[in-house]
Amino acid sequence: MSSFIANTKDMQFVLHEVLKISEAGVPGYEEMDRDFTEAVLDAAGKVSSEVLAPLNEVGDKEGCVLENGVVRTPKGFDAAFAAMKEGGWTALDCDPEYGGQGMPYLLNCAVGEMFVSANMAFNMYQGLTHGAYSAIHAHGTDEQKATYLPKMVTCDWTGTMNLTEPHCGTDLGMMRTKADPQDDGSYLITGTKIFISAGDHDLSENVIHLVLAKAPGGGEGTKGISLFIVPKFLVNADGSLGERNSLSVGKLEEKMGIHGNATCVMNYDGAKGWLLGDLHKGMRAMFTMMNEARLGVGLQGYAVAEAAYQEAVAYAKDRTQGRAVTGAAAPEKAADPIIVHPDVRRMLMDQKSFVEGARAFTFWGAHLIDRSHKADDAEAEGLISLMTPVIKGFLTDKGFETAVSAQQVFGGHGYTEDWPMSQHVRDARIAMIYEGANGIQALDLVGRKLAQDGGKHVMAFFEMVKAECKSHDGDERMKPFTDALKAASKQLQAAGMFFMQNGMKNPNAALSGSYDFMHLMGHVCLGLMWTRMAKAAFTALDNGASDKAFYEGKIATGRYYMARQLPACAMHLARIETGADPVMALADDQF
Amino acid sequence: MSSFIANTKDMQFVLHEVLKISEAGVPGYEEMDRDFTEAVLDAAGKVSSEVLAPLNEVGDKEGCVLENGVVRTPKGFDAAFAAMKEGGWTALDCDPEYGGQGMPYLLNCAVGEMFVSANMAFNMYQGLTHGAYSAIHAHGTDEQKATYLPKMVTCDWTGTMNLTEPHCGTDLGMMRTKADPQDDGSYLITGTKIFISAGDHDLSENVIHLVLAKAPGGGEGTKGISLFIVPKFLVNADGSLGERNSLSVGKLEEKMGIHGNATCVMNYDGAKGWLLGDLHKGMRAMFTMMNEARLGVGLQGYAVAEAAYQEAVAYAKDRTQGRAVTGAAAPEKAADPIIVHPDVRRMLMDQKSFVEGARAFTFWGAHLIDRSHKADDAEAEGLISLMTPVIKGFLTDKGFETAVSAQQVFGGHGYTEDWPMSQHVRDARIAMIYEGANGIQALDLVGRKLAQDGGKHVMAFFEMVKAECKSHDGDERMKPFTDALKAASKQLQAAGMFFMQNGMKNPNAALSGSYDFMHLMGHVCLGLMWTRMAKAAFTALDNGASDKAFYEGKIATGRYYMARQLPACAMHLARIETGADPVMALADDQF
Repeated sequence: MSSFIANTKDMQFVLHEVLKISEAGVPGYEEMDRDFTEAVLDAAGKVSSEVLAPLNEVGDKEGCVLENGVVRTPKGFDAAFAAMKEGGWTALDCDPEYGGQGMPYLLNCAVGEMFVSANMAFNMYQGLTHGAYSAIHAHGTDEQKATYLPKMVTCDWTGTMNLTEPHCGTDLGMMRTKADPQDDGSYLITGTKIFISAGDHDLSENVIHLVLAKAPGGGEGTKGISLFIVPKFLVNADGSLGERNSLSVGKLEEKMGIHGNATCVMNYDGAKGWLLGDLHKGMRAMFTMMNEARLGVGLQGYAVAEAAYQEAVAYAKDRTQGRAVTGAAAPEKAADPIIVHPDVRRMLMDQKSFVEGARAFTFWGAHLIDRSHKADDAEAEGLISLMTPVIKGFLTDKGFETAVSAQQVFGGHGYTEDWPMSQHVRDARIAMIYEGANGIQALDLVGRKLAQDGGKHVMAFFEMVKAECKSHDGDERMKPFTDALKAASKQLQAAGMFFMQNGMKNPNAALSGSYDFMHLMGHVCLGLMWTRMAKAAFTALDNGASDKAFYEGKIATGRYYMARQLPACAMHLARIETGADPVMALADDQF
Repeated sequence: MSSFIANTKDMQFVLHEVLKISEAGVPGYEEMDRDFTEAVLDAAGKVSSEVLAPLNEVGDKEGCVLENGVVRTPKGFDAAFAAMKEGGWTALDCDPEYGGQGMPYLLNCAVGEMFVSANMAFNMYQGLTHGAYSAIHAHGTDEQKATYLPKMVTCDWTGTMNLTEPHCGTDLGMMRTKADPQDDGSYLITGTKIFISAGDHDLSENVIHLVLAKAPGGGEGTKGISLFIVPKFLVNADGSLGERNSLSVGKLEEKMGIHGNATCVMNYDGAKGWLLGDLHKGMRAMFTMMNEARLGVGLQGYAVAEAAYQEAVAYAKDRTQGRAVTGAAAPEKAADPIIVHPDVRRMLMDQKSFVEGARAFTFWGAHLIDRSHKADDAEAEGLISLMTPVIKGFLTDKGFETAVSAQQVFGGHGYTEDWPMSQHVRDARIAMIYEGANGIQALDLVGRKLAQDGGKHVMAFFEMVKAECKSHDGDERMKPFTDALKAASKQLQAAGMFFMQNGMKNPNAALSGSYDFMHLMGHVCLGLMWTRMAKAAFTALDNGASDKAFYEGKIATGRYYMARQLPACAMHLARIETGADPVMALADDQF
């Protein structure tokens, strides 16, 4: 069984010593002092360990069941969901006007990380609701907000997002779901949507579906798409639940992982829906939520990796096998714990240096979103827009890799379902796929984000890295960080230059390197994070911090990342610079 | 459902145009002309597609069941097993003296690749039997051979290998299973063995367990270990089956994949066994089979990847989504097939260039084993001993990565169990773990094989690479291959030099880089294979080969590997040269 303990200490370090949130000048951050965030994180950590983690295996083994059109969630999920609601965890960063607690999105992310580590499938029920809440909050009429948001803030009603259809996922322009306008201003929605996470279940009184569909007169492709609110039960004028809407669960998907979450085929048979936002502007409404949704998936990537890493460390300290090559470390035992072996350490260091770097990166991203939303900071908005595909694509790829590496520490035991490692790997796999498969993230990054606003944001990022390095000039201790970061950043710039010089003549030359660019940029971002974390750790040590082991460990872990992960940057650049020819050389029938 | 078609064409290319087996001068290869191997491969391909592949999903979904102490295999496995026996596929490279067909091991590997691609879990029943057959063939008395081998050649009786115990896998010195000598020359075996693949099932009349155990007087650690033949049913003097031995299945493991194969906990309760080979020399007996067994697992790595790649290609040609960035490729359709997109092609090229390189590498390894066994070629034996951990470790790591990449091509559909991709990924995962986890392979490579016989074999390999490059001097077409191979080989040599200069002072300095060295060497080996394949393809084209698309595709795929995969070598070298410090910096409690 999973034995997850939230790493609140590291979170506090990132919030207060790296991001220094209470000095950040973002509205709503004033109260975020160390004691306050510690209290919140500790309480959330307790829920994670005691309520959510014990249900993770149950969710995986039992899965969801569709019986007579109704989805039943695994045993214990209902009680845990009630506990989450009661603790106010569903409302943390929601608008106080609708019953939320109005805390920063950043803090919600920190708490969310724990919940995902403890039980990714379970946390999706409220995660999807939060996404739908945000959409209605941003685009709904006052009446719509008043009708739906208070119930969604508490998760009495949960939410979903309906984009994908059997024949179209990435290419939503081919969408077939139709919206027929009615005289009363409503629409009748007809079509089939697939891969609807939390599409139906027994945890809430109502499910508020947000459905993309084509209303007449919108034209071809994505231009004709609008977004609709389609509740499972219609809502009466007094807010009580009315009749059942004409929608049903066609099928529950059998999946590789996240068995505890109900992935539904949803059939809309003339279901009553109401336009959310502007007619024919549904894609735009979706896109405004995308930064948050994609950051949330990137967070899943490293949060599951954190859980897997914790298991691997515990196992490596407990399992005895062989002797340290430099002499017995535990001579009183028949063998040494396997953590003495360099190759086991390599795996653990890979895992640790990734997870901690990813946490800092994601928290920074959430902080940028707060800046953009709460402080109307256009630079922050531009930067997070650029970073979003990197957070989603890089962190989920590496998160999966990390879970696989953690599983490897267990040898044969990791392959059995008696240990939690198979589940972590199977769960982590989906994050590379949904919310835009990682190849699409790379396309978004190279095809759109690099050139956005005349390339302003990527230039700002390069300047930021340069300034960071310059600020440590003369600090010899920081040289292993700044030297590596400078080199990696130069490689990233060279890659960008290659795209500029070749992408216009042949777009395939840029797109053939897009995936490598996303990874190269991910490494630069984590290198930047490790540089900042190392500086914060040195500062703490200089100031006589009592917990020397923590800060020294932080610096050593950062050195590992710079020395052993950043060399991947040159490889990515070399691949990028081969251009389109190797990738596009074959005719279709030569495959 | 899986729709696997064996790539006999590529196999023929490797056998006859790269390895040129009929001119190789290895005893037993004389008959191996194009027509002969084509007939065998075509027949095996038919069995793979028609008998084995249709059962792959059945095996995954149904799994094995333990009922009243008896293991039941999935529906249809018994009939398929009977067909395999009847076709003589279990006896291909076995000794004619015991009913085998005496064909080269190389040909058996080619056929085995197809069987694994079609149904990995199923093929393990005969694969394990082949391993046990080889052990008895190499170490058994004439009587033991006469008793067991004829039945094992036909798979009327199947075999197993029992090494691991709950508390020891890698470190077999801690073994607790005991062998008590009896007056009649037999032993009573008592202990628990775990992870016993094909440990029990309903496909054969008898199961011949080979069990490692400690007999008195052998001393501490692995020195005291002997190997025993422990049949499920004792065999009477006339060869008929006698009483049931005192052994039982304690449990069937629930695993991440290979559900169709029964992974058993085996309890030996004073089971009757007979010494195989010399007393207290059980480890040596195991090691003599290890090259074959590990090559067999490396083969699983890329064979599953081949199956996954085939699915990905078919899906990428069929699924339409979006438009080619250079203009519609299928204007008559609502969207282009996704194979037009550079990032989809990148994935397919990664897959194709790996699988074909791995096939050539594995066939070459099998060819070296034939040379070593049939032609008493000591150089070949030294070389395959060096290559074995690379074949096992590199090909299974990359094979898994390839299966994951193929799954990614499917987007969300690849995550559902409606498509075969989840199974391929879950199945492929085990190959990185069993038969010595890949970290152990890296340890074997760097800690033992590099220095074996005074470093003679690795020097011979470097010379071989050098000679290969030199042989193409003046051939401009070969420059993209030889330039890249030379550079990679230099990086490999630099890594070896680093180990020599630092490993003596600090063994951790070498072991911290062992995993990267294994991958670096893997890339050099595949680079060498691609150089040879490119040369063979150019030669065929020069000779006016009619199938130009095949040979040109081969060259383009090789160029992709050299241009886009070999840049990993510099990364591995950079990591290796950081030595032990980054890896070993943390105290245990800093994790």
